[in-house]
Amino acid sequence: MPNYTLYYFNGRGRAEILRMLMAVGGVQYTDKRFEFNEWDKYRNDMPSMCVPVLDIDGQNKMPETMAIARYLAREHGLYGKNNMDMFRIDYICDCFYEIMHDYMRYFHTKNGRFFENGKESEMNPATVIPYMQGRFMDTCRRVLPFLEKTLETKNGGNQFFMGDQMSLCDMMCYCCLENPMMENQSMFTSHPKLMALWKRVAAHPKITGYLKKRANTNW
Amino acid sequence: MPNYTLYYFNGRGRAEILRMLMAVGGVQYTDKRFEFNEWDKYRNDMPSMCVPVLDIDGQNKMPETMAIARYLAREHGLYGKNNMDMFRIDYICDCFYEIMHDYMRYFHTKNGRFFENGKESEMNPATVIPYMQGRFMDTCRRVLPFLEKTLETKNGGNQFFMGDQMSLCDMMCYCCLENPMMENQSMFTSHPKLMALWKRVAAHPKITGYLKKRANTNW
Repeated sequence: MPNYTLYYFNGRGRAEILRMLMAVGGVQYTDKRFEFNEWDKYRNDMPSMCVPVLDIDGQNKMPETMAIARYLAREHGLYGKNNMDMFRIDYICDCFYEIMHDYMRYFHTKNGRFFENGKESEMNPATVIPYMQGRFMDTCRRVLPFLEKTLETKNGGNQFFMGDQMSLCDMMCYCCLENPMMENQSMFTSHPKLMALWKRVAAHPKITGYLKKRANTNW
Repeated sequence: MPNYTLYYFNGRGRAEILRMLMAVGGVQYTDKRFEFNEWDKYRNDMPSMCVPVLDIDGQNKMPETMAIARYLAREHGLYGKNNMDMFRIDYICDCFYEIMHDYMRYFHTKNGRFFENGKESEMNPATVIPYMQGRFMDTCRRVLPFLEKTLETKNGGNQFFMGDQMSLCDMMCYCCLENPMMENQSMFTSHPKLMALWKRVAAHPKITGYLKKRANTNW
């Protein structure tokens, strides 16, 4: 097995899906975390000045959350059996990723950090924060009903998105909704199948142990 | 071969990579285009109220640009040969997609259209347009040097990202940079290998015919 190092901030954020995939795949890796105030030390060593990044054998630093996620999912049988399965898993994942992407941009705006260009300083926080929040909530309103309906098409929505086996997209459900649900559970109550799936993933034998021992951070 | 219908606005935008993949794969499909003022007629029929959408056999409407792109790329041998190839193709694609995503948000903001929530009306256009443009340009500045360097690692960057065969990520280079280059060529001159790749894709025997006969739109 290659020697993996995962680089990310000391938070769940965009990296948590990768840590969870490593846990389910039984992969050993170095979980390299740093604080926001250490970012300047790391930025220029990251391929596109972004994290998460997966380093393989100390030779190849690979960027892009979902590219890493799909690589790990293929490696560990969490990506379906044929092209149509992969298509379905992909669009479900990408819908969840839209939520995560808009949530992370809102979250970082709200916390006044992690901007590349400083342009935000020209923006009035009283305007831009509700704007980013509005964008995130619209994405939820647009995407969650579709995901609820999609889940229902297999086994009444009482197992996983692809049937009786957990796959990458179920894990995305867990990771992308975790922080949003902590902030505002009411947004999700009208999607009971997704809420139940969220708990089902958390209770999965390969996830539950990971969740118990993972680092405890507030995002 | 399934019966495909592709739904999108009457523009290249996020759908052009899909039309190009169809052309390279020799796939027949219905290219269903509509104007912005017709969007209300279509919105609720689209899975997550977004386009592009690929309909298969009139039964399954599938959303998410890159999920559709990867499905078509797998179907037509444009996605490499093994998991590590797919990983590389994926992260290169996702880097280009970051540019496209931020460009499209900037482009639509600038043109005052395509907002789901109307929150933009609370924002001052004189502030928000430069903000969106700044975000897009930062993404270019962050991502393009990495892509140029990545291209150079195979055959000196004088062929394609994965060597002598064109793949999905080369086509993403073409589609994602087309509008930005029309607007501001100078942003790309410091990336000569990418510029040459862009022209190489346009000159590819399976692309050149498509480019000649495609609908002529300004985005």
